[in-house]
Amino acid sequence: MAADRDWRAVIPVSEYRLKRRVQFHETDAAGIVHFSWFFRYMEEAEHALWREAGLSIHPPDTEIGWPRVATSFEFRRALRFEDEFEVRIRIAEVTTRTIRYACALVQGDATIANGELTIACVRKRRNEPMKSIEIPADIAARFNAGG
Amino acid sequence: MAADRDWRAVIPVSEYRLKRRVQFHETDAAGIVHFSWFFRYMEEAEHALWREAGLSIHPPDTEIGWPRVATSFEFRRALRFEDEFEVRIRIAEVTTRTIRYACALVQGDATIANGELTIACVRKRRNEPMKSIEIPADIAARFNAGG
Amino acid sequence: MAADRDWRAVIPVSEYRLKRRVQFHETDAAGIVHFSWFFRYMEEAEHALWREAGLSIHPPDTEIGWPRVATSFEFRRALRFEDEFEVRIRIAEVTTRTIRYACALVQGDATIANGELTIACVRKRRNEPMKSIEIPADIAARFNAGG
Amino acid sequence: MAADRDWRAVIPVSEYRLKRRVQFHETDAAGIVHFSWFFRYMEEAEHALWREAGLSIHPPDTEIGWPRVATSFEFRRALRFEDEFEVRIRIAEVTTRTIRYACALVQGDATIANGELTIACVRKRRNEPMKSIEIPADIAARFNAGG
Repeated sequence: MAADRDWRAVIPVSEYRLKRRVQFHETDAAGIVHFSWFFRYMEEAEHALWREAGLSIHPPDTEIGWPRVATSFEFRRALRFEDEFEVRIRIAEVTTRTIRYACALVQGDATIANGELTIACVRKRRNEPMKSIEIPADIAARFNAGG
Repeated sequence: MAADRDWRAVIPVSEYRLKRRVQFHETDAAGIVHFSWFFRYMEEAEHALWREAGLSIHPPDTEIGWPRVATSFEFRRALRFEDEFEVRIRIAEVTTRTIRYACALVQGDATIANGELTIACVRKRRNEPMKSIEIPADIAARFNAGG
Repeated sequence: MAADRDWRAVIPVSEYRLKRRVQFHETDAAGIVHFSWFFRYMEEAEHALWREAGLSIHPPDTEIGWPRVATSFEFRRALRFEDEFEVRIRIAEVTTRTIRYACALVQGDATIANGELTIACVRKRRNEPMKSIEIPADIAARFNAGG
Repeated sequence: MAADRDWRAVIPVSEYRLKRRVQFHETDAAGIVHFSWFFRYMEEAEHALWREAGLSIHPPDTEIGWPRVATSFEFRRALRFEDEFEVRIRIAEVTTRTIRYACALVQGDATIANGELTIACVRKRRNEPMKSIEIPADIAARFNAGG
């Protein structure tokens, strides 16, 4: 962030909607998107939400990392090659050390799947183990759990 | 299965331990295995469990499919390039239409992550939507929820 | 294609430019995009080119397939997380049974990599091996090797 | 490497054969292994060859990297879910700054695909661009282009 930018004036973001199309390499021999891809779709939307908030979740040479602590998905419908869908992610909770997202994949009026993802803030230094830390204030100020 | 094989005599399997090494293409720019891979590791162990039971989960030209209904992981430690670990999967529950697995990734004495996966049995016919069906008896006989 | 559509009136396409951003799961522990992803980027652009031509390369229940026969890449520069780049694919040659593409990944004025891909037209029928066939006229009419 | 180890006494390796089984997540909606996976199979065999030579291609905190410079594959046959095959990689050429591999994927007597891969040795330092360097002598001594 530019040193002269007043992050306290930032309007925090609470959700993001990512439009996406199924790519061929994401499908499997059952003819549908492999379930591991839903977690990648969710993460693509998460990182777009961070960009919307004016941040990168992994800037060059950062000492701060955001390992995934827990995640889940419930699958209702399948996605197929070239299907267009939307990944709706929102901040469900921000604690001093974690962020929890709720996510829905939707196609028109149909819900394809619902997911959750919790990440934790850590400090990473060369030759030291990862260490849980509090979310820096200038990052926490960018996010807001939706109403 | 050979037509003359008496599947009722089969000893059902309840768990499988898959030895695995982290491949480079499974890591990400944070220097650790991307979390989406844990779901693939769990599924690789699931399919090895099916082979151990004398079955393929996706034989050629099958009408029966096993879509994933729900899955989750809790992550405790990271895996890095060339780490060797074990994927321990066990049948947690078999109902008339679903199978639920519990999974642990372990490295020596350390638990890396714990996961769950529930799959459902469906019939897939060309030009028809997938239809939930009961698990065929000759398949159900191969699996047994562990004690 | 609608039965009443005169495909002979179609203006054939010869190239496509796909804008893309590097996703986190595409990077590896060296901090750059894993080289296997360049082939997926090229294929994503290929399928977008087909859609631009009014076609899907893999419509539901098709008997026609397009296996990859040969492919290559030369890498000049690395791509990193969140980099924006363009995948420029063009038809280099259409023969009676194959299509050959040339591809460049560019970032601003810099060429990141150059690739090639040759695909062949086959008929796939259940319980028969894949069989090389001539490209159907209504498909061939949609593509044109660039000048 | 241990400082007191005399690497000049090492018998260099020139090839490696990796046994592999197709995993479900490696297949696509055409029912076969997605072509991008052949490059990952080749790299998995490359890294096993390095381990066979007593090396890791990406040890922790290394300043030396091995970016891929060029690669190609010619595909003859398809691989399907649960197929067992072998990845045969051999050192085709070692120059002062590059290593070139030749690779064949085989299944019984059948050749599935043939590939090539050229990698270059670079120094990577924080805040500096990658710089081509000569392959360190203790690494070059471990490899030998096959007869």
